[in-house]
Amino acid sequence: MPITQRIPHLHAVVLAGGSGTRFWPLSRELAPKQFVSIFGGVSLITQAVLRVSEMTADGGIHVLTNEHLLDELRNHLKSQRGIEGIAIDYLAEPTPRNTAAAIALAAAYLLRTDPDAVMIVLPSDHLLEDGERWARTMRVAAGLADEGLLVTLGLTPSYPETGYGYIRMGAELPEHAEDGVVGHEVAAFIEKPDRATAETFLATGEYLWNSGMLVARADAVIGELEAAGAGDIARTAREIAARPSTSWTTDDARAAFAALPSIPFDKAALEISKHVAVVPADLEWSDVGSLLALQAVTKSDERGNTLSGNVVDVDSRDTIVYSADRLVATLGLKDTIVVDTADATLVASKDRAQDVRLIVDALRVLGAREIVESRSSLRPWGSWTMLVKGEGFQVKTIDVLPGHRLSLQSHSHRSEHWIVVEGTARVTIDNAAFDVSANESKYIPLGAVHRLENPGIEPLRIVEVAVGDYLGEDDIVRYEDDWSR
Amino acid sequence: MPITQRIPHLHAVVLAGGSGTRFWPLSRELAPKQFVSIFGGVSLITQAVLRVSEMTADGGIHVLTNEHLLDELRNHLKSQRGIEGIAIDYLAEPTPRNTAAAIALAAAYLLRTDPDAVMIVLPSDHLLEDGERWARTMRVAAGLADEGLLVTLGLTPSYPETGYGYIRMGAELPEHAEDGVVGHEVAAFIEKPDRATAETFLATGEYLWNSGMLVARADAVIGELEAAGAGDIARTAREIAARPSTSWTTDDARAAFAALPSIPFDKAALEISKHVAVVPADLEWSDVGSLLALQAVTKSDERGNTLSGNVVDVDSRDTIVYSADRLVATLGLKDTIVVDTADATLVASKDRAQDVRLIVDALRVLGAREIVESRSSLRPWGSWTMLVKGEGFQVKTIDVLPGHRLSLQSHSHRSEHWIVVEGTARVTIDNAAFDVSANESKYIPLGAVHRLENPGIEPLRIVEVAVGDYLGEDDIVRYEDDWSR
Repeated sequence: MPITQRIPHLHAVVLAGGSGTRFWPLSRELAPKQFVSIFGGVSLITQAVLRVSEMTADGGIHVLTNEHLLDELRNHLKSQRGIEGIAIDYLAEPTPRNTAAAIALAAAYLLRTDPDAVMIVLPSDHLLEDGERWARTMRVAAGLADEGLLVTLGLTPSYPETGYGYIRMGAELPEHAEDGVVGHEVAAFIEKPDRATAETFLATGEYLWNSGMLVARADAVIGELEAAGAGDIARTAREIAARPSTSWTTDDARAAFAALPSIPFDKAALEISKHVAVVPADLEWSDVGSLLALQAVTKSDERGNTLSGNVVDVDSRDTIVYSADRLVATLGLKDTIVVDTADATLVASKDRAQDVRLIVDALRVLGAREIVESRSSLRPWGSWTMLVKGEGFQVKTIDVLPGHRLSLQSHSHRSEHWIVVEGTARVTIDNAAFDVSANESKYIPLGAVHRLENPGIEPLRIVEVAVGDYLGEDDIVRYEDDWSR
Repeated sequence: MPITQRIPHLHAVVLAGGSGTRFWPLSRELAPKQFVSIFGGVSLITQAVLRVSEMTADGGIHVLTNEHLLDELRNHLKSQRGIEGIAIDYLAEPTPRNTAAAIALAAAYLLRTDPDAVMIVLPSDHLLEDGERWARTMRVAAGLADEGLLVTLGLTPSYPETGYGYIRMGAELPEHAEDGVVGHEVAAFIEKPDRATAETFLATGEYLWNSGMLVARADAVIGELEAAGAGDIARTAREIAARPSTSWTTDDARAAFAALPSIPFDKAALEISKHVAVVPADLEWSDVGSLLALQAVTKSDERGNTLSGNVVDVDSRDTIVYSADRLVATLGLKDTIVVDTADATLVASKDRAQDVRLIVDALRVLGAREIVESRSSLRPWGSWTMLVKGEGFQVKTIDVLPGHRLSLQSHSHRSEHWIVVEGTARVTIDNAAFDVSANESKYIPLGAVHRLENPGIEPLRIVEVAVGDYLGEDDIVRYEDDWSR
């Protein structure tokens, strides 16, 4: 039985942009932090979707990302377990333009179909406790929001963090209170404090971390932006939202959006509006702000080490080691982070965890493909993993989801040998179709028009050995494609 | 033109044991430190062979190792460039029993065919300057040795090392002196000194590092062992040496050898004998004693870092990073060593470089295959590299040397798909033979008696996709094998 009930008119807007720089090499440009599946088995964005999927209205889950990531995000969520059957509305904003513009666009979009829409805006790159306490917090916030307030969720601080904004709670708002969860007026929004100030905040018990989670009626979002002097944002958002969402990334829409001020919603509306509230959320939470968050993956040992995966340590202290697969051995380290993935390893001093972007910057200068994607690449039909790029040949495994197929295609510079190792493939070569079972193979000559399909209900995996003088992904002519690529 | 001349009766005995523990993950049990090819492009043992190959008598290069490593060593040297055409006599001692027994066995062995044999005993796991200075040093040492002296090479110390033994030079031995290289009597052998003592040694200029390199007549080796009271070692060495070297590892030979005292030749003879000399060798030298030796692979940068391979660093200091292939990024490290290989990564504090064996010990307890061999494995016919072990399948590349072939074999649990990606293979399947060119493939059904051969003069590379319920290397029946396996 679901522990939560649907809240009428509730829509979740999951913000899913991100550059993949702070969590590298676990995150990449085409697989930013919210795609990382190391916390609890599924990715952070999957967790965000699951967190709201039982309380939103029908068709009420919207994921807002940028054009660049839209396909990746779709492929990613398709690859995740536990969210099959959850309808997700994918939206690409015209161009990244900070949260005021993004939230306004989402609000205007929801108002087109539901004038009473209540939206919860959720970042997708944090860890947050799920369950009954979360549901109760949401009900209280949604109740206050429905009265027209912009409601933020404030997190009970557990230490004097200087990297977050704080909210000072004002008087209680007993309406909608439920079992210890009660909303408050907002006495003040406070920018990132210094350490001493943060300690004072913690001591008084009157301050909360500003979580960036917003619950509000969509019309209130637009109205409060207008009242706060950000009418341009509201207007442009309405103009763009009036189009089909597939037309949001046309040149004129992009230009209009790009002309808006790049400003957070907090600054544009929340801190100016008189109609705000905060609901204290006493929830386990982590912003996964740097690789230090890997400490949450597993329990630390008696010397303060957090070792996850295929790791052997001798005499290290206060060190974080994460290995996806390969063996990592550590000896006598102190305050160090080691993150190992199939194609790249990062070793950093713990006190430089915030500076991982400097590595990504350096790699970008070098044109290193390791910042763009890992050895594996998600596709609408499944995924592939590069095993080796050799002189004149390369080897991949290719996984095709049941009922899916790759495009009908040909190559000018390579032949392909396909060996089925799991499931049964339907292989089309120049108008002839073959069913190829596990331990059987097919040869695709250079120039042949071919297609790989998984017609079954079980997974299909093949090993592809490509042979040719040029092996780039761009040597492809597509004749037919289920995804119009 | 060779810069050196052959020295009559000179035999090199290259000692090539080693456990592969101190240089892990670059070294493995089946590929110890002397196999590592990162210094100057070829392995340390190849360098040792090349160092003596132009001065030894015909058939005068003998490599002495243990039974366990004999095939690996042969395969290794076959895979190395630059030593093709050099005849190497491979010897396996009955069981590892320290250098007195090993050197005695080699001496007795040489005496069987050359009563006037002069032997140079060389470790194979160090870096040593080659060229004219080395040749001159050797000529002086061989001249003194031929007069019956046990001659050690002493290295001019460059800093007050406390981990080596020292030799105090006595009076000059002007015979055989050549262009500044002159032998000396040995005034004293000194055990590893403390730091203050080592500094004094350095200041006087009378002390040399004991290099472990010995030059002596084979009969003098045996005679001085006997005179020093180690007659049991001499006697057993002669008994075992009387057999064909392929019979040195029988049970009785092993038992006899194991019964000998485990003692270094220095202790058993050199330090007791009255007939010793030392030749100061002012040569560039490194004992490659730990991963700190990686500092010799490339020049250090202005922050004291030595970065080799696919490495990107931001703000590290005095750090050593070596990557064989994959991308390694380092951020803000200090005094750290990072060594990355295809299947394992080590990250260690520099001051723990001597303790890498603790990692190997820990991995041994876990039964980790990464201490035994890397993802690649040398074979008498070439090599293979594992690309992936999946559920019910695995993929390898297989390289076959020109003119070589694998055994005629069959498997009970796997079928194999062979795709030739370079060269031309001759494939035998159940008595039928096929020539398979690049971009062609063959299927080897489960149970089929098959063979892979490279009949050409160019390299052959295939990709093998094996499919089956059990994929261990031990699922093999060999019907014919060029190497009698």
